[in-house]
Amino acid sequence: MLHAIVLAGGSGTRFWPASRRLQPKQLLAIGPLANESLIAATVRRIEPLCGLERIHIATGEHLLGATRQALPSLPSANFYGEPLARNTAPCIAWVTALIAHRDPDALVMVLPSDQHVTDEDAYRRALETALRAAQSGEVATIGVTPTRPETGYGYIELGEQLDEEVYVARRFVEKPHRQLAEQYLRQGGFVWNAGMFFFRATVMLQALERHLPELSRPLERLVAAVGSELEPELTQQLFAGAPSVSIDYGVLEKLETLRVVPASFGWSDLGSWESAWQLSELDVDGNAGPAGAVFVDARRNLVQDLRAAPDRRVIALVGVDDLVVVETEDALLVMPRDRAQDVRAVVEELKARRRDELL
Amino acid sequence: MLHAIVLAGGSGTRFWPASRRLQPKQLLAIGPLANESLIAATVRRIEPLCGLERIHIATGEHLLGATRQALPSLPSANFYGEPLARNTAPCIAWVTALIAHRDPDALVMVLPSDQHVTDEDAYRRALETALRAAQSGEVATIGVTPTRPETGYGYIELGEQLDEEVYVARRFVEKPHRQLAEQYLRQGGFVWNAGMFFFRATVMLQALERHLPELSRPLERLVAAVGSELEPELTQQLFAGAPSVSIDYGVLEKLETLRVVPASFGWSDLGSWESAWQLSELDVDGNAGPAGAVFVDARRNLVQDLRAAPDRRVIALVGVDDLVVVETEDALLVMPRDRAQDVRAVVEELKARRRDELL
Repeated sequence: MLHAIVLAGGSGTRFWPASRRLQPKQLLAIGPLANESLIAATVRRIEPLCGLERIHIATGEHLLGATRQALPSLPSANFYGEPLARNTAPCIAWVTALIAHRDPDALVMVLPSDQHVTDEDAYRRALETALRAAQSGEVATIGVTPTRPETGYGYIELGEQLDEEVYVARRFVEKPHRQLAEQYLRQGGFVWNAGMFFFRATVMLQALERHLPELSRPLERLVAAVGSELEPELTQQLFAGAPSVSIDYGVLEKLETLRVVPASFGWSDLGSWESAWQLSELDVDGNAGPAGAVFVDARRNLVQDLRAAPDRRVIALVGVDDLVVVETEDALLVMPRDRAQDVRAVVEELKARRRDELL
Repeated sequence: MLHAIVLAGGSGTRFWPASRRLQPKQLLAIGPLANESLIAATVRRIEPLCGLERIHIATGEHLLGATRQALPSLPSANFYGEPLARNTAPCIAWVTALIAHRDPDALVMVLPSDQHVTDEDAYRRALETALRAAQSGEVATIGVTPTRPETGYGYIELGEQLDEEVYVARRFVEKPHRQLAEQYLRQGGFVWNAGMFFFRATVMLQALERHLPELSRPLERLVAAVGSELEPELTQQLFAGAPSVSIDYGVLEKLETLRVVPASFGWSDLGSWESAWQLSELDVDGNAGPAGAVFVDARRNLVQDLRAAPDRRVIALVGVDDLVVVETEDALLVMPRDRAQDVRAVVEELKARRRDELL
């Protein structure tokens, strides 16, 4: 059977003040989907492929409540709360082992919960192609065809072409500097690593045993205790002893036969307020904002009013360009779009001031 | 007896969104006096000179309620509501005539209600000097000694020096362009017209009869009817038929013997959010804002939280310089400090959108 593991962790800093420690990005309706959280959109997109009952949500223990609330139609047992954040490898290993325990033939896709997709049909077609490649016993990934010399993503270099849609991965490339990113775009054969992975559960568990053996032993002990009173304690031990490592670095890069499916479906990782602006519907001056916003001699600004009950309050921008203005119930942020990464500095400052209620 | 006429009209556009049609600048606590409206500060400053009972407030009819509320210790009868806005000459003529009707020997000082004064003792000394000059039967004014080549004010050129503190005015000069303003500053002998005027009531009424005779006739009819049921109707007629002209242009410029008292007392007309920033207490980066504001790599910004009940909301500015950010209950304004004059454009836009509740 086909299962999905949707990764829904996150620290909630990049979209502050909308995102918070207890309300990270995937729980927000950011970008063009005004009324649907990113995680709800993710689940809606894949429901036609695997059904709600086999969609598994992996999140932090402290986020279980809010995440269940965001996905009320999912069975409560499908939510997995990591006791400790240890990057993606331990988490994927854990949920994959639990799925395999009940369904040894499980085919699994791992998907981020916080991405945006414009062409949902093309997206599902790409998933199906990658699943077909995984069905045959290899680990597969989707590589998004680059549309710009992006320096914020990791890349995968394509190797041998196996059929019309599937390649072997040659190597993973860290986030490149500008010049290199331009070269990748010009030369072709490089795709963005979008963090989507496809595998038979047994294949992944074998790969883990080989490349991350320190995970495999506690995982076996845990699986043997599933349903017993020991399970919580052994889960805790698994994460406490696990290396904090990504599945890419810990496993995938070491596979000789990783499959890559290049695809285009209007993908964005929605990494910052800057990308939220890029995805927004813009007026003739490049501004995006609520209906009541007033722009006077102002260009390319993003205004977001994210208060729970927006009233008829007016937000007026005069003579300013390329700003992000975000309002929530308890915070207001003003910054240039190209400083979107620096929003973390505000979160750090608020931490230093012990304004924990704002984090 | 000494009387004061405090001019308290205004359209409430320059300090939008804090100022509104029904809450113009003088009713706000802008600048360094955090808890005192500008008009209350004006009254407090002059109370030692003439007592509350002889301070007369001239405002628009529609502003009577809010203005009385801002000055609860003043007798209710001391508020004068102009039925129509006709600039300063008709208003000053009207209130002066009513004062003279009850107190023919009245000495009058006319003061704006919306200015800021740093050195209040020096201010009162200047008023007393000007009053002494007016006592002798001339009209007098105070000229503020320029501290910068300001192009936003009118100037008065000093003529013959009569004693240590008093000059004859040579001429009024309209707002100069930059080069001329610099020349005035270099050369000396020019002072800022601060809109403060001092005269015996009878002297002003004679000057009006000579220079604005179309005002004098209806004014005489009105004074003859004071206290009668005809008074409101005749007041209405006075304003309806009055030319819309300033006292400077209509009368003072035509006087050969106008006295000028140059003075320095840390004066500002608080003409825009820019001057509010100039008067604010700034941190080491030149920022002014509420205690909870967070500035990250941001310089020379003014943040004003003017909501009725400010909570622990945080306002964070990241990587922006020289901005004004103003919050009220129902509006948020973001603009560069040097565009402060353009806030009117927002008011115009809101008018066009029929958002009357925001004006």
